[in-house]
Amino acid sequence: MTRFMSSSSSIDKTKMVIIGAPVDYTCSRSPGTRGGPDAIREESWNIESYSPSLEMDLEDRSFYDLGNISFPIGDVSRSLENIEQVSRMLFSKGKKVLLLGGEHLVSYPVIKAASSFYKNLCVIHFDAHADLRKFYHGGSLSHASVMRLVAENCLQSGKDLHQFGIRSGTREEFEWGYHNTCLSSRLPDREQVEDLFQEIKGRPVYISIDIDVFDPSVAPGTGTPEPGGVHSSDFLNVFYEMNRFNVIGFDIVEVSPLIDHNGITSLLGAKIAREGILLWS
Amino acid sequence: MTRFMSSSSSIDKTKMVIIGAPVDYTCSRSPGTRGGPDAIREESWNIESYSPSLEMDLEDRSFYDLGNISFPIGDVSRSLENIEQVSRMLFSKGKKVLLLGGEHLVSYPVIKAASSFYKNLCVIHFDAHADLRKFYHGGSLSHASVMRLVAENCLQSGKDLHQFGIRSGTREEFEWGYHNTCLSSRLPDREQVEDLFQEIKGRPVYISIDIDVFDPSVAPGTGTPEPGGVHSSDFLNVFYEMNRFNVIGFDIVEVSPLIDHNGITSLLGAKIAREGILLWS
Amino acid sequence: MTRFMSSSSSIDKTKMVIIGAPVDYTCSRSPGTRGGPDAIREESWNIESYSPSLEMDLEDRSFYDLGNISFPIGDVSRSLENIEQVSRMLFSKGKKVLLLGGEHLVSYPVIKAASSFYKNLCVIHFDAHADLRKFYHGGSLSHASVMRLVAENCLQSGKDLHQFGIRSGTREEFEWGYHNTCLSSRLPDREQVEDLFQEIKGRPVYISIDIDVFDPSVAPGTGTPEPGGVHSSDFLNVFYEMNRFNVIGFDIVEVSPLIDHNGITSLLGAKIAREGILLWS
Amino acid sequence: MTRFMSSSSSIDKTKMVIIGAPVDYTCSRSPGTRGGPDAIREESWNIESYSPSLEMDLEDRSFYDLGNISFPIGDVSRSLENIEQVSRMLFSKGKKVLLLGGEHLVSYPVIKAASSFYKNLCVIHFDAHADLRKFYHGGSLSHASVMRLVAENCLQSGKDLHQFGIRSGTREEFEWGYHNTCLSSRLPDREQVEDLFQEIKGRPVYISIDIDVFDPSVAPGTGTPEPGGVHSSDFLNVFYEMNRFNVIGFDIVEVSPLIDHNGITSLLGAKIAREGILLWS
Amino acid sequence: MTRFMSSSSSIDKTKMVIIGAPVDYTCSRSPGTRGGPDAIREESWNIESYSPSLEMDLEDRSFYDLGNISFPIGDVSRSLENIEQVSRMLFSKGKKVLLLGGEHLVSYPVIKAASSFYKNLCVIHFDAHADLRKFYHGGSLSHASVMRLVAENCLQSGKDLHQFGIRSGTREEFEWGYHNTCLSSRLPDREQVEDLFQEIKGRPVYISIDIDVFDPSVAPGTGTPEPGGVHSSDFLNVFYEMNRFNVIGFDIVEVSPLIDHNGITSLLGAKIAREGILLWS
Amino acid sequence: MTRFMSSSSSIDKTKMVIIGAPVDYTCSRSPGTRGGPDAIREESWNIESYSPSLEMDLEDRSFYDLGNISFPIGDVSRSLENIEQVSRMLFSKGKKVLLLGGEHLVSYPVIKAASSFYKNLCVIHFDAHADLRKFYHGGSLSHASVMRLVAENCLQSGKDLHQFGIRSGTREEFEWGYHNTCLSSRLPDREQVEDLFQEIKGRPVYISIDIDVFDPSVAPGTGTPEPGGVHSSDFLNVFYEMNRFNVIGFDIVEVSPLIDHNGITSLLGAKIAREGILLWS
Repeated sequence: MTRFMSSSSSIDKTKMVIIGAPVDYTCSRSPGTRGGPDAIREESWNIESYSPSLEMDLEDRSFYDLGNISFPIGDVSRSLENIEQVSRMLFSKGKKVLLLGGEHLVSYPVIKAASSFYKNLCVIHFDAHADLRKFYHGGSLSHASVMRLVAENCLQSGKDLHQFGIRSGTREEFEWGYHNTCLSSRLPDREQVEDLFQEIKGRPVYISIDIDVFDPSVAPGTGTPEPGGVHSSDFLNVFYEMNRFNVIGFDIVEVSPLIDHNGITSLLGAKIAREGILLWS
Repeated sequence: MTRFMSSSSSIDKTKMVIIGAPVDYTCSRSPGTRGGPDAIREESWNIESYSPSLEMDLEDRSFYDLGNISFPIGDVSRSLENIEQVSRMLFSKGKKVLLLGGEHLVSYPVIKAASSFYKNLCVIHFDAHADLRKFYHGGSLSHASVMRLVAENCLQSGKDLHQFGIRSGTREEFEWGYHNTCLSSRLPDREQVEDLFQEIKGRPVYISIDIDVFDPSVAPGTGTPEPGGVHSSDFLNVFYEMNRFNVIGFDIVEVSPLIDHNGITSLLGAKIAREGILLWS
Repeated sequence: MTRFMSSSSSIDKTKMVIIGAPVDYTCSRSPGTRGGPDAIREESWNIESYSPSLEMDLEDRSFYDLGNISFPIGDVSRSLENIEQVSRMLFSKGKKVLLLGGEHLVSYPVIKAASSFYKNLCVIHFDAHADLRKFYHGGSLSHASVMRLVAENCLQSGKDLHQFGIRSGTREEFEWGYHNTCLSSRLPDREQVEDLFQEIKGRPVYISIDIDVFDPSVAPGTGTPEPGGVHSSDFLNVFYEMNRFNVIGFDIVEVSPLIDHNGITSLLGAKIAREGILLWS
Repeated sequence: MTRFMSSSSSIDKTKMVIIGAPVDYTCSRSPGTRGGPDAIREESWNIESYSPSLEMDLEDRSFYDLGNISFPIGDVSRSLENIEQVSRMLFSKGKKVLLLGGEHLVSYPVIKAASSFYKNLCVIHFDAHADLRKFYHGGSLSHASVMRLVAENCLQSGKDLHQFGIRSGTREEFEWGYHNTCLSSRLPDREQVEDLFQEIKGRPVYISIDIDVFDPSVAPGTGTPEPGGVHSSDFLNVFYEMNRFNVIGFDIVEVSPLIDHNGITSLLGAKIAREGILLWS
Repeated sequence: MTRFMSSSSSIDKTKMVIIGAPVDYTCSRSPGTRGGPDAIREESWNIESYSPSLEMDLEDRSFYDLGNISFPIGDVSRSLENIEQVSRMLFSKGKKVLLLGGEHLVSYPVIKAASSFYKNLCVIHFDAHADLRKFYHGGSLSHASVMRLVAENCLQSGKDLHQFGIRSGTREEFEWGYHNTCLSSRLPDREQVEDLFQEIKGRPVYISIDIDVFDPSVAPGTGTPEPGGVHSSDFLNVFYEMNRFNVIGFDIVEVSPLIDHNGITSLLGAKIAREGILLWS
Repeated sequence: MTRFMSSSSSIDKTKMVIIGAPVDYTCSRSPGTRGGPDAIREESWNIESYSPSLEMDLEDRSFYDLGNISFPIGDVSRSLENIEQVSRMLFSKGKKVLLLGGEHLVSYPVIKAASSFYKNLCVIHFDAHADLRKFYHGGSLSHASVMRLVAENCLQSGKDLHQFGIRSGTREEFEWGYHNTCLSSRLPDREQVEDLFQEIKGRPVYISIDIDVFDPSVAPGTGTPEPGGVHSSDFLNVFYEMNRFNVIGFDIVEVSPLIDHNGITSLLGAKIAREGILLWS
């Protein structure tokens, strides 16, 4: 396996740890996100370690790519347990986590682990889909339910879940979201980010990025593309403005290299990962 | 054949009827639009029936997907006659028509049928190309001539043809258009939609959407992509602002799944179809 | 969903029933077999209902396409239970089963159900891989273990499992197979089919066809292609020579349309399905 | 437009003339054969002008690539008339014709033209499909009817139509073929070619090659691939053995570059064209 | 080879000459730009010769497509010499040059040739990458070094190199650029173009356009796509505003048709070429 | 970089060493072979370490994957020098070499190095193309000249070059080959292999395998596919029969993953590599 560009050679003394969760049991339209973590790592070597926007270089940071978590293949519950266990271990050692998915469901055990260490955790969620279903195809453990699970099981209040870019869901999901979470169909502008910063100042924050928050033109390699999404520069600008947030972990999920074109979705994932590492490690 | 998501089980009591016209006789660069109607229907199942922008759900609407019109294969004139006949039948029963193409030429018989029921019909046309040629490859029945045919044969005045997004054509087409239709290279802004609304208030309107009005990045799956097009969010905003228009039919044409990537063009077609049904059925 | 070409409109009085099992939880290299059943059905409309080799027509047969079995998404055990339950119900009514996969693991519950109705069941298995692992990625329920499960749990003797075309596996699998099943790296020739026929005359037979028994050139659309496979004409000839076998069910698995080229793997699956229905329904 | 490799610079004094017929009005599954002639020409530059099998070089031959025939786009009848007219002109000047399709229907006007100059014409037809339908999708002019048209309108007897490789068709087509043409599901072996040579010695022969006579693995770039076809070496061997036939024209049709992979189908078409020119010009 | 649409039939009396440099020796991620010049020419036939934005038509211009420069295959230095030689010859006759790449390195010999005729040359450079490395993979002649070579060897001052859209590079490149060239991560706005015009009024200008200045969604067919790029309309608007610049040559490089989708990157290249010819020939 | 499956962790005590030469400077039709070595390595993990045909397991062998040789990018001569130097070093230590290309030219420096250690070297060459040109595109160092270079510079006699499967070349190449090498258009049968074995018994042998010796259906991922090639099982049978040959090195070249389909060409390369390692390490 190829490690993420500039990964340290040992986990000791690193502040941030990358874990891959190559799981796509519950994807509904097109599978392939199990190849996401490795594709993002591969493409990380095709961008520079230096970010001209941040004027920082990965070479000056210390983070470690732990590789992919191994799973009992085809067993959702035990797979999630494995992810949670590894995450707990990392948070317990004071590490920050960068999770590469895999389907969105894999965010749940990481956030669950985070919430047991960071009692007043906030979650910022970028996605095309609300992911607030109670049940999906007869099960509660699915990528369409992940933020419902987070809101109900990992946060003091659903209102600590800040959802941006949400442009698809059932009527029930939107109604539930409007009542129980902070749900917006758009990216926050500079002022809104500042307001959010003031609101949650000092609290630990986990950021979950479903790659389908982007327009299908920008990120075609994902299982459930939804027309009308955001562009990469706009997203990165929001990202940069969150530099003062107390981010204790973040993830990039739903990248599906099998249906990507010329690796542009994986490249985007790699660039977001680089900027995030530079911002918060 | 798969019907469009949430189609009623019977045509009775429905307000809007979907017909498919899988025709691509006259495409010049890359064929494949004959697969458009079915691809749009397939992808309709991969978006939700609920529109958060409109806060409406297809499940609460009544429309019927009549399937594809059958054609004497390879015979343009008789194919157009079949489409016209079905359209007449539908308009005569007070139905609205949602046409899924196929190449753009298929809009002509539907608009022709509409014009015989709605005497003061207006046509709003979104496209990269003017489609105003007198002749194309030696014939007058082609996708490059369709709006010339509409302007000359279906409207009281060519000025009842409102063309938006037009960024390609011959000098002759643009000159003819500037004199005889209302031609713009851009999308209308909010104010311009309002002006248009005031101008044609109450008159019946048919909207024809050639998917190549979008930028090739947004809609790569079409036969004659033209750089420099519009983005999906911008288009949808215009669409939403036309909600008070008296739309009696609309179409989405030139979707070519054979050359699409991960279905994103068909998905866009399906989403536009859904929003249009919600707006006007 | 599109039914298989020429499917009867009701299950009553039909001799054979098609079920789809769109499952690909345990694929290791490339996922996508969950799209197999529907792709085979779609492509069935692109071949004729008449087989010139058999001089028979599907239109003269009576079989029913029951559609896809629904699953609790991401839960292997319960998914297999659902398949087994449906299969039991069908066998109990004297139906023959044509299973369209999905990954190979889905054959197990069908064969298990068959074995409880047909006590002296034989299984004929065409595959590139032995599928005889005891464990795979820490679990025993995987596509790499399916024929081990069959041999140990569904047959009076492992020697009732006749494996053909096997050209890949671990040393352990081959050693276990040489001792416990009838394993061959080739297709049987005419004489060998006749010998097999004499050996098992009258006994019920289930045939399991992993599409990767074919050469990757012939069937590129599968998750674990293995160079050096058989050609379609050679396979069909073997198939035709098994016409006197007492086949009570068969399957075609591991077709993965996402990574196919121009549908040729799905088309091959559809043609094998047609010939099998004609031979044994 | 790129001419076929080694084409003479003038039609004068050439024995054979290449014409392209980029028509795909009546394809049913996937369009794209309109790109066939140009793709075959392009790929001709990627093989050598020298044939080691024939020990002959295109550079020593004299043939001319006339380019593509122009058509009134979308009008089947007039398109066929154009092809017939050009063909008549060429045959009248004693030229041999190499037709590059386009869909198979384009063979009809060339053979019709040939039949009016060569009264006792024989046709040798390589194809996966019988193409003997009376009507198809309500019309008689379609690629599924082309050899029925030839048998009924261009030959003294249907038995002058020798069909090889036919492995798909309706029961009616096969029954009609068995009675009215010489139809075989296989390639002829050496002896059968010799028998045929003796039977038709001296008579003018037209050879029509639908690229789908090849196995889909060998020629994936075609609209209606049919599993179980022939391999290129086997076909070329038959071709070489027909070197003494009095071939007055031949065609290669149904190559569809849009759905090809790495140009291998067009390359095959180009190689067959080269060998045919070397054999009969 | 296909010439660019509307190319004159002779070089005499033409003002602008197109040359192709199908070279991709030093691409690092994905090769294929050697097919760029021909792909751009092919796609030029799929846009109109008329530009509605400029209200000008290529048919009214006089330019000549000289075809591709031939190279000793695999020899970088001599290849660059050939390009320089041809360019010198053209500049010496007062021609303007439109170079179609190929990898970016091919711009160097053209600019070098230009600089020997136009002593106070300015270069305007649109790119995602700074291309300012001193060495790359052990050599100084690479696409990652091309603008360093230009700045150091072809201009009176590095500050005569105006770089726009630069969003990727090493820390060293950015530092060198900030000190030695005029480097911006964005496109210039209208005012900045005007300022630049005033600054360099009358001086000869060469414009070098690396297609990866565009967002990967807009130009996926390039070897090193970099997320966060510019959109085609925005770029074209800048282009139009440079209409008064004294442009003596320009290039479009790094188009890689092998990894493009439906030709949209080549189409964009062709459109930029058309607008440039209309603006400056 | 991923190492070949089961590679030892150190070069010491290993008998065979894998080197990658990711070079494709002189490919004429489609580039991409620079990705060949890594793609073959990646796919090696998707086959088993055990060969049922040979009843041997890579785990029981000792070989080392040295990785890719680094090159001064774009400089053919110095690149070949680097390969030769590494090869010399390996041969001098008694290692056998498995070279993964890259274009075929890379075989030359390895064979040259071998010839300086093994004075009576024989070369066995599998290829679609004779590769016997004196010059190609103005240079003598190209993939079309590689075996001419070998025959003239590395062997005591051109007759020590045994070429199989050659089905394309110029008349000059074939004439030169018939006089100066042992050239056959086919694979050797069992008897011919035996004859060859008797002829060269005990002499050191280098085997060079251009993947395009295979039919394009079997190995579509290569730059110059040539219709009418061999099938993988037939080739492997020849390979197995050469088990007693004194093979001191072999190569697999011209695999081009960029234009492959579902990795089947790389998989074939990996399988041949595995069998070769098992046979001769």
